[in-house]
Amino acid sequence: MGTITQRDFNGEAMGKLVFIGLGLHDENDITIKGLDEAKQSDVLFTESYTSRLREGTIEKLEEQIGKEMIVLSREDVEGGEIILHEAREKRVAFLVPGDAMSATTHVDLRMRAMKEGIPTKVICGVSIVTAATGLLGLQSYKFGRTTTLPFRQKGYFPASPYEAIKRNMDMGLHTLILLDLKEDGDTMTVGEALEYLKELEDKEKGDVLTDETIMCALGDVGSDEPEVVCDKMGNLAQRGFSSHIFCLVVPGDLHFMEKEALQALASAPDFD
Amino acid sequence: MGTITQRDFNGEAMGKLVFIGLGLHDENDITIKGLDEAKQSDVLFTESYTSRLREGTIEKLEEQIGKEMIVLSREDVEGGEIILHEAREKRVAFLVPGDAMSATTHVDLRMRAMKEGIPTKVICGVSIVTAATGLLGLQSYKFGRTTTLPFRQKGYFPASPYEAIKRNMDMGLHTLILLDLKEDGDTMTVGEALEYLKELEDKEKGDVLTDETIMCALGDVGSDEPEVVCDKMGNLAQRGFSSHIFCLVVPGDLHFMEKEALQALASAPDFD
Repeated sequence: MGTITQRDFNGEAMGKLVFIGLGLHDENDITIKGLDEAKQSDVLFTESYTSRLREGTIEKLEEQIGKEMIVLSREDVEGGEIILHEAREKRVAFLVPGDAMSATTHVDLRMRAMKEGIPTKVICGVSIVTAATGLLGLQSYKFGRTTTLPFRQKGYFPASPYEAIKRNMDMGLHTLILLDLKEDGDTMTVGEALEYLKELEDKEKGDVLTDETIMCALGDVGSDEPEVVCDKMGNLAQRGFSSHIFCLVVPGDLHFMEKEALQALASAPDFD
Repeated sequence: MGTITQRDFNGEAMGKLVFIGLGLHDENDITIKGLDEAKQSDVLFTESYTSRLREGTIEKLEEQIGKEMIVLSREDVEGGEIILHEAREKRVAFLVPGDAMSATTHVDLRMRAMKEGIPTKVICGVSIVTAATGLLGLQSYKFGRTTTLPFRQKGYFPASPYEAIKRNMDMGLHTLILLDLKEDGDTMTVGEALEYLKELEDKEKGDVLTDETIMCALGDVGSDEPEVVCDKMGNLAQRGFSSHIFCLVVPGDLHFMEKEALQALASAPDFD
């Protein structure tokens, strides 16, 4: 108890729990290592509320793996017992869209398993954090902290995303803004996100986000044809998108190479 | 010219250039999509100076793909002409350890190809940035900007890594510190890295990095048995490591769940 470490996976224990990242888009964004591990597992779980995969991905993954996957709700994952119960005696894989461990719940689940003496392992997947950076041609070390725009619910309308953007901008750093997902996997639209940000600007009056502010939007990341757009915030609000947008990026100070990249890769407007 | 976008890959052009991320550890950390693309390519290039893979990985990849890979030096990649020359007429894959687009050179190469009208595509790989966060159980939105410790060369001893850590700490944020690679793929050792940081502390006197400062080190990330350690900086300097360490993490303010995670996942000492 409590003495099990990250390096104890290959022992003789019957029950094991592996977290496998599925990557960003479809059934082929899993690593070979992840797919092999899934094939070796006795029971497979997945969830669809932390990132959105293309429709039909779970079914195609089941075909590739040759086993059924049990799709868990947020409540089931947070409760944890369904997964832990199986992992006490069987080799269990939990296949997570995107990266495997970016949700606190998944870290919590891993620690609960380890406390019980169940060996665990992580097989990482591609994350939107680095994919978005790369597709925009921005430099990763120039990003400040990431923020998430949550769905507003009665009275819940936090200013923390705005504060994160403002602080990053003050330091000349870029901000990645993740858009929240509903339980059914639907993301917030760009229109909803921009409206949210505008309201925060009106409230906080930091003069950070105006119609002239340059902003990027990324959708279908991981596919052959990602939608990668950079425009002034005022124009972005008018634009139609052909994909589900995963995230926005607010650039801070741009190196001339980054400006060139945004123009070549995201059709950015002329900079001043 | 210049009108080609990220969405023009599946056209009839003869020459194409695909950037494929190889992920972090061995030949099985590539995605299924990346491997399929590599098999379809006529010419395959790779490099070994942006991240380190396990010995023998290139050879095993060649077996899996069924084709030879040409290993380029930093100079060759920066020059670019070797790759572009082939990509004008053939389907070329450039297989990059780690994520595909974190190096500025690779972004530059992509833009040069697009300017020439060569369609390009990116198949992302797992990056140390999200993998390290996940293996430590830290929350990704609590990381500030990332920094890299370069090898010191006559007179080249930048204070920017120290400044990044200090600024992040002042805001309560964690810092990921990447360790630089030599051309042969060897990383800086933890001893060298800590000495570098200590010298910067002595010079800048920000009282940020002392023997008591909690710090994490990660090696063999992506393998079944990653080395994940958290200790006071003074102890870390004395410690032996069984793997090549990729990166350090200096935690900022820790949530109680993050403290628990560092203890369970990285054998952290008691937090006061």
